[in-house]
Amino acid sequence: MNRHLICMLLTGSLCAPLQAERLKNEPIQPIEPTHIDEPAKVELGKKLFFDPRLSRSGFISCNSCHNLSMGGSDNLPSSIGHKWQEGPINSPTVLNSSMNVAQFWDGRAATLQEQAGGPISNPMEMASTHVLALDVLRSIPQYRQEFASIYGSDQIDIKQVTDAIAAFEETLVTPNSRFDQWLKGDDNVLTQAELDGYQTFKDIGCTACHNGPAAGGTSFQRMGIVEPYVTKNPAEGRVAVTGKDADRFSFKVPTLRNVELTYPYFHDGAHWKLEEAVDLMARLQLGRKLPKEDIDNMTAFLKTLTGDQPDFRIPQLPPSNNATPIPVPFATE
Amino acid sequence: MNRHLICMLLTGSLCAPLQAERLKNEPIQPIEPTHIDEPAKVELGKKLFFDPRLSRSGFISCNSCHNLSMGGSDNLPSSIGHKWQEGPINSPTVLNSSMNVAQFWDGRAATLQEQAGGPISNPMEMASTHVLALDVLRSIPQYRQEFASIYGSDQIDIKQVTDAIAAFEETLVTPNSRFDQWLKGDDNVLTQAELDGYQTFKDIGCTACHNGPAAGGTSFQRMGIVEPYVTKNPAEGRVAVTGKDADRFSFKVPTLRNVELTYPYFHDGAHWKLEEAVDLMARLQLGRKLPKEDIDNMTAFLKTLTGDQPDFRIPQLPPSNNATPIPVPFATE
Repeated sequence: MNRHLICMLLTGSLCAPLQAERLKNEPIQPIEPTHIDEPAKVELGKKLFFDPRLSRSGFISCNSCHNLSMGGSDNLPSSIGHKWQEGPINSPTVLNSSMNVAQFWDGRAATLQEQAGGPISNPMEMASTHVLALDVLRSIPQYRQEFASIYGSDQIDIKQVTDAIAAFEETLVTPNSRFDQWLKGDDNVLTQAELDGYQTFKDIGCTACHNGPAAGGTSFQRMGIVEPYVTKNPAEGRVAVTGKDADRFSFKVPTLRNVELTYPYFHDGAHWKLEEAVDLMARLQLGRKLPKEDIDNMTAFLKTLTGDQPDFRIPQLPPSNNATPIPVPFATE
Repeated sequence: MNRHLICMLLTGSLCAPLQAERLKNEPIQPIEPTHIDEPAKVELGKKLFFDPRLSRSGFISCNSCHNLSMGGSDNLPSSIGHKWQEGPINSPTVLNSSMNVAQFWDGRAATLQEQAGGPISNPMEMASTHVLALDVLRSIPQYRQEFASIYGSDQIDIKQVTDAIAAFEETLVTPNSRFDQWLKGDDNVLTQAELDGYQTFKDIGCTACHNGPAAGGTSFQRMGIVEPYVTKNPAEGRVAVTGKDADRFSFKVPTLRNVELTYPYFHDGAHWKLEEAVDLMARLQLGRKLPKEDIDNMTAFLKTLTGDQPDFRIPQLPPSNNATPIPVPFATE
């Protein structure tokens, strides 16, 4: 701090060496803006992300549960699926999801592309089939044209569909949070409470799991290491993928980026208050009962992780026509 | 045409007198772009329009059934409401709805502002109450601030909420359709089939009801004048408002603007093909059985009424906090 002050006085600006040092030493790294290499593919993916015709009802789109006006989540404990079915688990945010080691809470999809195919054909979510979703898209000349110009063929297949959706999702990063401004050297952007909260966050060991640019998303951890996590949710996490008993109740560590926007918390979405989530994590994972002041400061710190939200024009979807399969929201079968 | 050609050859540009003549004589008038007088109010209204927290489930927003990526409609026969209830009637497009003589198919709301309060508290739609919706908004400091700066008070009331939503909806006009370009004097923008279709549209009397800038929306008419309209939908239309037997099966004439995007058609949403809708209207309302060529040409003409769609950035909704009432999508009461 002293060195920094001298530096400011001497040069009237921030000191590059100090910035570099901070960037190197902190366990959380800044999120950088994306560079869009294939704008046409991203635009197509955006349309698909917002297109409810990928669902059997014609009502549910990717954006229904990963709402880009609400932190890329639905802000519900678990999602509402086809015919108002109650989903089994909390919808993770799509923001910065390209930084996850794998997708879904149990990591059963290795990539965003693999993930994107799941909800479309999940009977509890969008309840379509890949065959039906492709029939819908292939019936629409404007879609055929876009796919042809990007993929060299208008014989739209599911790999192209999920590739385009993933390309759009890769753009959904949230740079420029106040925390990132601080990481990059702006000392005036965080309050003392926020800095204290960050210090506690590091001191008690949160950064063992919540690290890297996304402050999470890079590993699977048992939910309830010191004390068990009490929940009515039957999900058992990673064991469903690996079959290993050691992975029971192991879940992907969620990103803490934009955590202010992605309530309610945990895989069961049972906790709406960030203070509650901080308290629980400290006790259950680290065996620490934190005083209220620390919880409040850590909560204040976590809110500095809210970055610039995706900022784009709403897509216009090409209309269906006489050849397009008709959605059946109320069919009884 | 000859006069116009001479005019073009002489001046190298379109002839103002001819344009004025066309504008004066045609039963459909162009839609003009809106001028936004109160941008802050429109921005607030946009947020409210997209905010699912105005519903009891936290899942349904105005945009769910008046989807601005899909012609301001949901492209379903009738809408999906709270807990997947099947709505009683087709959701009319919100596009150009400020030009309607009244709102809803039966005109039971005189203004957009009056309309906007309805779905929020309708148990079959968003299923909230005005009290609960206001509690949600009042709990959110960013909303309170916006309301205060626009309405001079942060004691948000339902009149302010619906006023802001209506202000946003008033911006949802769709100028610059190919038909409007033709109306304004561009002779090269319509095909012969489209022009022929428009001529038939006028000749057989469609313009008696579908006139003005919105090509409809200005009157109530009996559905099935010459022949009865066969439907399973029990709605009886305007009689519900006036109590007059003469208004039984009388509905607001829908706008034909963007009709290419607002399928399926009629108050029961029973017809997905525009050709079918044209054929039915000609027979039921005007007693004319049209040959296929006329139907095809009129359909081609109707597709020239697709205008520039609302083009705006997706809103970012201010987050809930510990004081915000929690949505209850799966409550059993």
